[in-house]
Amino acid sequence: MKNNKNAKLKIIPLGGLEQIGMNITAFEFEDSIIVVDCGLSFPEDDMLGIDLVIPDVTYLKENQNKVKGFVITHGHEDHIGALPYVLKEINVPIYATKLTIGIIENKLKESNLNKSVKRKVIRHGQSINLGCFRIEFIKTNHSIVDASALAIYSPAGIIVHTGDFKVDYTPVFGEAIDLQRFAEIGKKGVLALMCDSTNAERPGFTMSEKTVGKTFDMLFAEHKSTRIIIATFASNVDRVQQIINSAYKYGRKVVVEGRSMVNIISTAAELGYLDIPDKTLIDIEEMRNYPDEQMVLITTGSQGESMAALSRMASGMHRKVSIQYGDTIILSSHPIPGNEKAVSKVINELSAQGANVVFQDTHVSGHACQEEIKLIYSLVKPKYSIPIHGEYRHLKAQHGIALSLGIPKENIYILKSGDVLELNEYGAAVTGRVQTGAILVDGLGVGDVGNIVLRDRQHLAEDGILIVVLTLEKYSNQLLSGPDIVSRGFVYVRESEDLMEEAREIVYDALDECLRKRVSDWGRIKVVIKEAVSEFLWKKTKRSPMILPIIMEV
Amino acid sequence: MKNNKNAKLKIIPLGGLEQIGMNITAFEFEDSIIVVDCGLSFPEDDMLGIDLVIPDVTYLKENQNKVKGFVITHGHEDHIGALPYVLKEINVPIYATKLTIGIIENKLKESNLNKSVKRKVIRHGQSINLGCFRIEFIKTNHSIVDASALAIYSPAGIIVHTGDFKVDYTPVFGEAIDLQRFAEIGKKGVLALMCDSTNAERPGFTMSEKTVGKTFDMLFAEHKSTRIIIATFASNVDRVQQIINSAYKYGRKVVVEGRSMVNIISTAAELGYLDIPDKTLIDIEEMRNYPDEQMVLITTGSQGESMAALSRMASGMHRKVSIQYGDTIILSSHPIPGNEKAVSKVINELSAQGANVVFQDTHVSGHACQEEIKLIYSLVKPKYSIPIHGEYRHLKAQHGIALSLGIPKENIYILKSGDVLELNEYGAAVTGRVQTGAILVDGLGVGDVGNIVLRDRQHLAEDGILIVVLTLEKYSNQLLSGPDIVSRGFVYVRESEDLMEEAREIVYDALDECLRKRVSDWGRIKVVIKEAVSEFLWKKTKRSPMILPIIMEV
Repeated sequence: MKNNKNAKLKIIPLGGLEQIGMNITAFEFEDSIIVVDCGLSFPEDDMLGIDLVIPDVTYLKENQNKVKGFVITHGHEDHIGALPYVLKEINVPIYATKLTIGIIENKLKESNLNKSVKRKVIRHGQSINLGCFRIEFIKTNHSIVDASALAIYSPAGIIVHTGDFKVDYTPVFGEAIDLQRFAEIGKKGVLALMCDSTNAERPGFTMSEKTVGKTFDMLFAEHKSTRIIIATFASNVDRVQQIINSAYKYGRKVVVEGRSMVNIISTAAELGYLDIPDKTLIDIEEMRNYPDEQMVLITTGSQGESMAALSRMASGMHRKVSIQYGDTIILSSHPIPGNEKAVSKVINELSAQGANVVFQDTHVSGHACQEEIKLIYSLVKPKYSIPIHGEYRHLKAQHGIALSLGIPKENIYILKSGDVLELNEYGAAVTGRVQTGAILVDGLGVGDVGNIVLRDRQHLAEDGILIVVLTLEKYSNQLLSGPDIVSRGFVYVRESEDLMEEAREIVYDALDECLRKRVSDWGRIKVVIKEAVSEFLWKKTKRSPMILPIIMEV
Repeated sequence: MKNNKNAKLKIIPLGGLEQIGMNITAFEFEDSIIVVDCGLSFPEDDMLGIDLVIPDVTYLKENQNKVKGFVITHGHEDHIGALPYVLKEINVPIYATKLTIGIIENKLKESNLNKSVKRKVIRHGQSINLGCFRIEFIKTNHSIVDASALAIYSPAGIIVHTGDFKVDYTPVFGEAIDLQRFAEIGKKGVLALMCDSTNAERPGFTMSEKTVGKTFDMLFAEHKSTRIIIATFASNVDRVQQIINSAYKYGRKVVVEGRSMVNIISTAAELGYLDIPDKTLIDIEEMRNYPDEQMVLITTGSQGESMAALSRMASGMHRKVSIQYGDTIILSSHPIPGNEKAVSKVINELSAQGANVVFQDTHVSGHACQEEIKLIYSLVKPKYSIPIHGEYRHLKAQHGIALSLGIPKENIYILKSGDVLELNEYGAAVTGRVQTGAILVDGLGVGDVGNIVLRDRQHLAEDGILIVVLTLEKYSNQLLSGPDIVSRGFVYVRESEDLMEEAREIVYDALDECLRKRVSDWGRIKVVIKEAVSEFLWKKTKRSPMILPIIMEV
């Protein structure tokens, strides 16, 4: 290790606080950059018509020759989802654990990138060298198996990045989090800890995933005479394993439904992360061969997503499964903030069809609560604290935890997207900012919908549009035809003929005034029409549709 | 009382299950109709641009001569909000308790109806005669003072309607719910109980409002050195009283901010429902005369409503209050489902400005939980159960409670909006349906936005609009000008000039084809253009903007 006061590591979040979910952080030392995670986020309520949001990676493109690879902590969308977009611009290798790579491979295939992008499976405990960095993968627990924390060894010091994690002493699959390794690295001296803040407001410990298995057993014992349908997150392989365990124990066959559920389960089973007893999993077409009380359906849609299998069952739109009177339905998840109403809608529809929706809690979080966060700090004993993953309120809650553990206030950094934090053992400071941002994906378009388009969509959504078309004679500006008025999303036209007729009169008057004042500039004429019609409609209806004058010339 | 097997009471919910929040129920016996409550609901997510939703009261208009009056249980929007609209169509007297009438009067003034609509203040324990009905007001507890249950005496039997209620043995203002009267009426023999289902999924008892007062005291003791800002529901007068009590005890002045908060507090204080010690309430302008640690602000915005005072403070848009480093902020409410993200946004903004947002629970519900519902059933001992107030899942939960108390399944009715339930001591049945529905209010327009307009707004919101304008010569259909293409909310035009040029070519080709095939019907030409452009854009962008061809004739 150098002992150069000037040689500093740069840590640059390229997503994060301003774009929750877009987890992507660059670590830069001299001519080496590594990137941890490459997530996407889902559109905010005001991003009308947008499918996905991905990070602006201009900074990486500008420093393309330095970028050594993507190091991925686990296979959730908010950590891997932007890879297919970003790899098209910066094709560097991907490093991750086996299941994570398996999930990424499915994505790359869909984007025809599986041939051109290098990826490498790393085992927990193994390290890789990328430029002047060495990165060690450390076993953690999370709501998806094969999650990793990273120890990033740089010439300026060691950074421990937890990824999303919890402490599960009794995990369903594999080992508990490797607390000994956290401690060993802590003993070496850690420059900074970047720790998951998602549950930093919650006191105590997150329960073991295994506790959910016991609840499933109890519910299976209680509902022996009905069909059971369980909705959960597709990526929670351990949850699915526990449902399969209970099904096997109680002599039920399992059907898996929902595209993403089928995909992940087959990948996980192929790679050995799921243990499915023979003849337990059956095809949905075989369901009719078994009585209801011998069936469990595992399905997507626990968040009320309108196109997911459970929503389609609830609304009677599912082609293969109809809800039956007496069905026992278990939602094995908590609604993510923003999804509460959609989940409630599905519950109402299921209840109205006679299903029995069970409210027994069958979910535990995948994120560390306050005591687990304190444990990691106490093992790692970092000089600097950089809370990551979560909204501002969550980062601030971890800020409070770090303070309570004796980390000085000036050593705790809540970074904004694009902040450049430079640090080494002699000091740390935010020294600049790089370009970052949210790039909107709409259909095939990446970045072609910006603020102007979104503002227009919001305006159109609120009050619709009113189009005024007229044909003017070249040079003379005499009205040859129109004004025609067409509206969409404003009022029900048949009942508003009078209003439209009055609006047409207003346009005539505005045109007359322009002619009288010898206004011949069409831009100006359009503004006069727009203002006149807009004022008239506001007075009459207290609404402001978009007014779009179009002048044709003959 | 008659003992006629054929004389039946009709109970007709005109809002409710399909329009949660629009609480309005008609009770009809021969030539008399009374209406209990007249609420509005707020737009669902897909009702773009809609301000409010009110019930379709066609049935009342058609039977106007029978309608004797509105009997209102309490002053919340979902029970009184539609009155100004409905009274314009059916002007009959309003009966309610003092504060409820006070709040209604504010509404009537805003709509210039205060001179033309009769209203009468009724005390708890008092009865009124309306046609062949007698209605007794019974004291209950709720998150607004002066709430009432109703005993509706009809020739077919007694109906007990709880309104929204909870059992609070130690209310902040006035008496506890009049359980003795429920019991007395129960002793007489009750035909049907219509009971609040909002919390029917929750076991146990709802806590007394007074417990919140103790928490406020504790928080005031804990945060002696900072300003305190508390957001809560404007209509929760008891909550405001308890904040004032704590403020007085800890030597703080109180400022009230937010229009609806100021309105309700002044009405409540005027009518004697609030006890404010001298010199405790000060004007917002006087705030600067006191040090921070002697101030409490009570404000609206606890649900994250974007235009409310707290949101404006959080985003730095409030004209008179800036959030300061160290401010203690208490949200005295739980997010209503659907508002979680908005509340979280406000908390993030407040945290980012250095405020200390307190997560200590300072809210109790205003609705009865399972044990309270059982208590009311056990006092009233109804023959029939008609669960009211709540989503399907909640009504079904009360259905389960009624069953568990021994009410036979066939005597429990979950009614849909418009269902006509006929009942007397000899039997009950849903015998028909009347017209009901949600009437959308947008600006000054009441009912002029229907499904077609909403579908158009959704389409426009999703992908925007592309307008194709061309001028054709009369008779010959020769193209005189255009096609011009204008888009809004589709793509950022400057970056998509090629796409627009290609789209124009597509229109030329479509027109050529029409000319070649001698298609001269403009309707047909428009369809051909629309389909060609739509297909082209889908192929190129995987988006489906609204395509609007307009043909001008010269």
